[in-house]
Amino acid sequence: MAKAQLRSFAKATADFASGVDTPRDFLERCIAAIEAREKDVKAFTALRLVAARRAADASSERWRKGAPLSSIDGMPIGVKDVIETADMPTQMGSALYEGWAPGYDSASVHALREAGAIILGKTVTTEFAATQPGPTCNPHDLARTPGGSSSGSAAGVGCGMFAAGLGTQVVGSILRPASYCGVYGYKPSLGGINRGGSHDYMSQSAQGVLAASLADCWQVAIEIVQRAGGDPGYSGIIGPSTAPEADMPTTLAFIKTPGWGVATDAARKAMDEMIAQLTAADISLIDAQDDPDVAALEALLPETLALTRRINSWESRWPLNTYVDKDESKLSKGMVERLHAAEAMNVADYRRDILRREEIRACFAQLSSKVEACVTLSAPDVAPVGIEATGNPIFAVQGSLLGVPTLSLPMITIGGLPLGLQLLGFLDEDAALFAHAAALENVITPIAIA
Amino acid sequence: MAKAQLRSFAKATADFASGVDTPRDFLERCIAAIEAREKDVKAFTALRLVAARRAADASSERWRKGAPLSSIDGMPIGVKDVIETADMPTQMGSALYEGWAPGYDSASVHALREAGAIILGKTVTTEFAATQPGPTCNPHDLARTPGGSSSGSAAGVGCGMFAAGLGTQVVGSILRPASYCGVYGYKPSLGGINRGGSHDYMSQSAQGVLAASLADCWQVAIEIVQRAGGDPGYSGIIGPSTAPEADMPTTLAFIKTPGWGVATDAARKAMDEMIAQLTAADISLIDAQDDPDVAALEALLPETLALTRRINSWESRWPLNTYVDKDESKLSKGMVERLHAAEAMNVADYRRDILRREEIRACFAQLSSKVEACVTLSAPDVAPVGIEATGNPIFAVQGSLLGVPTLSLPMITIGGLPLGLQLLGFLDEDAALFAHAAALENVITPIAIA
Repeated sequence: MAKAQLRSFAKATADFASGVDTPRDFLERCIAAIEAREKDVKAFTALRLVAARRAADASSERWRKGAPLSSIDGMPIGVKDVIETADMPTQMGSALYEGWAPGYDSASVHALREAGAIILGKTVTTEFAATQPGPTCNPHDLARTPGGSSSGSAAGVGCGMFAAGLGTQVVGSILRPASYCGVYGYKPSLGGINRGGSHDYMSQSAQGVLAASLADCWQVAIEIVQRAGGDPGYSGIIGPSTAPEADMPTTLAFIKTPGWGVATDAARKAMDEMIAQLTAADISLIDAQDDPDVAALEALLPETLALTRRINSWESRWPLNTYVDKDESKLSKGMVERLHAAEAMNVADYRRDILRREEIRACFAQLSSKVEACVTLSAPDVAPVGIEATGNPIFAVQGSLLGVPTLSLPMITIGGLPLGLQLLGFLDEDAALFAHAAALENVITPIAIA
Repeated sequence: MAKAQLRSFAKATADFASGVDTPRDFLERCIAAIEAREKDVKAFTALRLVAARRAADASSERWRKGAPLSSIDGMPIGVKDVIETADMPTQMGSALYEGWAPGYDSASVHALREAGAIILGKTVTTEFAATQPGPTCNPHDLARTPGGSSSGSAAGVGCGMFAAGLGTQVVGSILRPASYCGVYGYKPSLGGINRGGSHDYMSQSAQGVLAASLADCWQVAIEIVQRAGGDPGYSGIIGPSTAPEADMPTTLAFIKTPGWGVATDAARKAMDEMIAQLTAADISLIDAQDDPDVAALEALLPETLALTRRINSWESRWPLNTYVDKDESKLSKGMVERLHAAEAMNVADYRRDILRREEIRACFAQLSSKVEACVTLSAPDVAPVGIEATGNPIFAVQGSLLGVPTLSLPMITIGGLPLGLQLLGFLDEDAALFAHAAALENVITPIAIA
């Protein structure tokens, strides 16, 4: 069972406080996992064990004195390699940035260090967080993709190398690898986490967390926001300073999204069983067949992937044009094609696309008067075989385009491989989404399809 | 008279088309001004004359063939040194970034090059576009400040070294130096010009243009937007592909702002004369005394400078914290103080501040049903003596906080030194503001106070 390998920090802090365990011991367990698995999984682009051990000792001393800097003091964290760190290169999965070391921490990394967290290493990303994969393999089956673009952060959490990883998502880059690697994935509301120093500038992109538990996801995110805020001009994730208490939802919408049409029979069967469990737990489930607002949304969702790709293309015209000027041979074919797609657009096309996005967002927001959240799969299947592609983002893209908070919970296995249950909340109601997710965790029995 | 020194490119293009003049000749006139004045004015941090002459020759050839890439093909442009360029360092007025050469063009610079414009050099900015001045002197009186933070772009345009300069503004950094240097200054609507590759990330900051004429301002901005768009998620400046036709406004609001209380008698006298001229041109002027909506706005504007400073402080907590980690000795005292101010705030304070900003913006937007634009001074006086400070931003900050398009027109001199007339338009109605400004230029006689 996939969850067994996860190494939650939130569940260890009571033992740090009581002296039964220490952050240094926690780190050593992570390092043992790295020693056992990194040669195969290839989650890291850079690793700082000496500094990590030093930081873990300092943290252990603070816990011993009863004065940790925060609830994540001592937490080992992997940082997706599009996010800058003062002490390691930021290479963005691109030959153009090989060895590039800006020398400063991103807003989020600085906040994590202020909170006492340990920046253990940088983790593999696809090229510029897009589609060209890195070397990372899925820890549950090395022949399969870990998903992308937050490949290394997902894979590292998935085999207990660290408690949490920073990721970014503009299409499906947090939820999809979370689903494939059997970890918790959290993409916040638009602007929820300050993206300063992260090469991740598109209008629907978000920085988020992949972690070993819901509580770890929340804690990492909220410790960042308390110190670095959200993006300039945004409120940032709003909510309590520790993980929200479980709050049982009364009504959820099941949205099939265009993903349902390509989901495997096994994945659909798992989702059907999930719905049966939710219904048995006295939650009302509505869907497009019995609710006109859900039907209206479902009618729009088939547009989201193409719309997202057009918006992302226009928004990456720069810097791709200046990268091509520099050295086109160092870009993947896909990146150059994206630039050509952008150059075939004009600003008027883009304005139409972002207006259309607003219409779809408004349609989704309508549901907030009827349901507490939406549920669906995180991906159409478990991780596909092969690491030359990162899998289908068709389910995960919905929350990206909508700009709403989404979670992937490792609640399903098919043939022993993980698949996520996706929850979509409403804009800036991230805390409510976590509360509902915590309640669902209490009542759902993980589903295993043979 | 200050305007006499300005070197408009828009006014030269007809001669390029007819063959009477060429971009190379235009550039040589700019270079002559640089040779005559740069040793005293110190507008540049880097200058690329060889490349500029080569680019001007290529442009001249395109004009000769009747096939310029755009209306700004061959235009010499100075780029504020917080905006990245592939061929010159980006030093941000900071010892921390001395010699830093990222190797890529910003979105705006790339777009300008695509349009055939000549990136002549990088221009002096205050430290990180904040308050610590660089070496630039006011071309109208070397003993005085050129204003900041877009100091070099304003000074260079002001003495004919180039036709237009890129600038950025988050408090008063385009309008104030435009006013002091006797040039046209344009700060677009929020998100109007793509800030990719510009170290200018705050929520109310904007990239804009300082230029030798209204038409030059518009043309530079719109050529960028057609190729690079606005900020991700924003429509970007909306309007025609050449400068909007003059459109006489029927009603304007005169807003005193808290600046009026510190404006000099001469500046107030100039503004009174301006209002008399506008009234004589059959424009209705309303103000706080005769209109409750203007009065409501004026009641709020005294908050804007302090509110802006708090918002900017919080939003620059990062990267200042990572700069201090790196080498605090390379930061000015003001920068370190700003970080301390940020560290005294929390995210809840910031949320209150941005909500308050929204209220003030909504109050301003109310006026759009009554007036076509607002008018006031750009600064409380001509440039002050001394280059150790960049002057008072109290008038210019209003448009920054409001997020609306603003223009400074060099319509006033006091003792031979320039002072700007400020026009404030409504969000995303930049084109209308230019049309009204063009109409005012047709009817206003520049005002000279002894």
